[in-house]
Amino acid sequence: MTDFTSFSALRAACLDLPHGNHGAGSAVAAREATLTKPPKSLGRLEELVAWLALWQGVAPPRLDRIEILVFAGNHGVTRQGVSAYPAEVTAQMVANFSAGGAAINQLARAAGATLRVTPLSLDQPTADFTEQPAMSDHEFLAAVSAGYRAVSAECDLICLGEMGIGNTTAAAAIAAALFGGGGARWAGRGTGVDEAGLERKRDVIDRGLARHRDALHQPLNAAAALGGRELAAILGAALAARRQRIPVLLDGFVCTAAVAPLARLRADALAHTLAAHVSAEAGHRMLLDELQLKPLLDLDMRLGEASGAALALNILRAALACHTGMATFAQAGVSDKEDDPAQQPKTAS
Amino acid sequence: MTDFTSFSALRAACLDLPHGNHGAGSAVAAREATLTKPPKSLGRLEELVAWLALWQGVAPPRLDRIEILVFAGNHGVTRQGVSAYPAEVTAQMVANFSAGGAAINQLARAAGATLRVTPLSLDQPTADFTEQPAMSDHEFLAAVSAGYRAVSAECDLICLGEMGIGNTTAAAAIAAALFGGGGARWAGRGTGVDEAGLERKRDVIDRGLARHRDALHQPLNAAAALGGRELAAILGAALAARRQRIPVLLDGFVCTAAVAPLARLRADALAHTLAAHVSAEAGHRMLLDELQLKPLLDLDMRLGEASGAALALNILRAALACHTGMATFAQAGVSDKEDDPAQQPKTAS
Repeated sequence: MTDFTSFSALRAACLDLPHGNHGAGSAVAAREATLTKPPKSLGRLEELVAWLALWQGVAPPRLDRIEILVFAGNHGVTRQGVSAYPAEVTAQMVANFSAGGAAINQLARAAGATLRVTPLSLDQPTADFTEQPAMSDHEFLAAVSAGYRAVSAECDLICLGEMGIGNTTAAAAIAAALFGGGGARWAGRGTGVDEAGLERKRDVIDRGLARHRDALHQPLNAAAALGGRELAAILGAALAARRQRIPVLLDGFVCTAAVAPLARLRADALAHTLAAHVSAEAGHRMLLDELQLKPLLDLDMRLGEASGAALALNILRAALACHTGMATFAQAGVSDKEDDPAQQPKTAS
Repeated sequence: MTDFTSFSALRAACLDLPHGNHGAGSAVAAREATLTKPPKSLGRLEELVAWLALWQGVAPPRLDRIEILVFAGNHGVTRQGVSAYPAEVTAQMVANFSAGGAAINQLARAAGATLRVTPLSLDQPTADFTEQPAMSDHEFLAAVSAGYRAVSAECDLICLGEMGIGNTTAAAAIAAALFGGGGARWAGRGTGVDEAGLERKRDVIDRGLARHRDALHQPLNAAAALGGRELAAILGAALAARRQRIPVLLDGFVCTAAVAPLARLRADALAHTLAAHVSAEAGHRMLLDELQLKPLLDLDMRLGEASGAALALNILRAALACHTGMATFAQAGVSDKEDDPAQQPKTAS
């Protein structure tokens, strides 16, 4: 299935998720224990390789084909003055992606990944959610389906990211709908609004929450009412990846908010995802905490575009290089850990 | 100068340090402001590029020639049962480095860096510092000089790391000598000693501190009395790099303790260094705090071998790729930040 034509069909897919392959994960852990290093001394690098194997279902896992999927959308709520940049920047940045001039182009190349950008009806911004639902059911399902279809079964890993002037407001509204707290808790400075802009964001979020109050107990309806096409596509792509057992690197606040409805529908829905980083956007750390996701990097980034995910790819590649390339204690003729280090005097001097 | 023949000559060199080139750092910051992203939205990536330029004295900086210098030494204090591994593992791991089987070999290749390993008199462990100074003045100065000479002026960046069974005990003793607190504060599990081993480490450190009490107010004397050849060489290499304005990535607890005496001699002595990561070894975070170094990565690693530094290289490369490869707002035809986002309604719908 690649197109969802009803909320009930989408919801059913969100609940029907495969588990990882624990045999592959265990095989990775067993090899790690034989490699020439103290047990677990590579820390999270070892966990990353086991996680890749768990979802790919092979040991050792592979990172030969990596795609970075960036979805772009426009937001009617920008009319409320919630962003430091004009809405036309979304399309301009999509052109910049095509020309190779954006940060994500450099980061994708540095990490050996293929960048695919999907603009979603940029000439038709979502509705201003303070006045009506951001998307109709049809628009929301079409965007989810576009994201779902964008995931290729041949990928070893995908990175998800977005571009959309105004979308930290949509993301904060979704986070507030799912986890409570309102605009005061979730609004941040996004691309850099001033204090007055931040106050407008908080107010806009609270007005959106009030207007759509009756729809918000259903996570998918909350995403349709408050979100955006690029967020819906990210949700669809994360769902497609899970159903094909492809591990996913999540990017920043918007990307994390986009997939959060999946976790509200089924608690383990994001087990195949990894938070690549925690961004400087105010709500991101709280949102990761709510989702029990532990970020890999913490570098004060707040760009979106999958930039944090692409950066974290380098860590995954290095982790896999250690796992596959290192010698075992037996191969290298290195003495393994002693049972009783107090017995060392004879060998040490 | 490449060889230090007296403590006074070494101390004089440690106090005679060049500053960075603020013009180059400012040129990087000026270009960053023109690139197609919100100001400072790449967070620490932007700071990293400015730091490289500051010390290399060129804008943009380069990462064409990177060397990872790993120094290895043996420690008489291992006779006290302070490590989970026998002392012969130091030489075995040096052979593993030569054969390409260790973690650092894979990480160096993944990051495009050259690995150079310098074993320092492995068949002559330092003395047991609970009984006498770990090194004579001559031995200490020779090891510092070996590290100093290992730094090539042609490098764009160096990573420093170590291998030495027993050396977390030496590192903890130096940290205690420089910053106070004794074995209880600084001893950690190293390669994985059990509770009894940890108790022995604490006791060994406290006995070393007591025995050499009169020498410890001089940072270099503390390093000679409690340290090890590989730590002394790291100190020498960090000093050589500073005097040639080469930026340095520091690795974990042992590496950081090795350079800490430089900071006690002159407060800004480590300005050309960056803490690549904070390791899982108990004292590392405290030591970084004492030195006001903010680690780039936090991945529960505790291997040494410059592994954390080599991993962080990937972040530096990605940061530089963004800086040099991104389009400017003018080149890409992207609208820059608006002065007053409240004026957006006309463009947004």
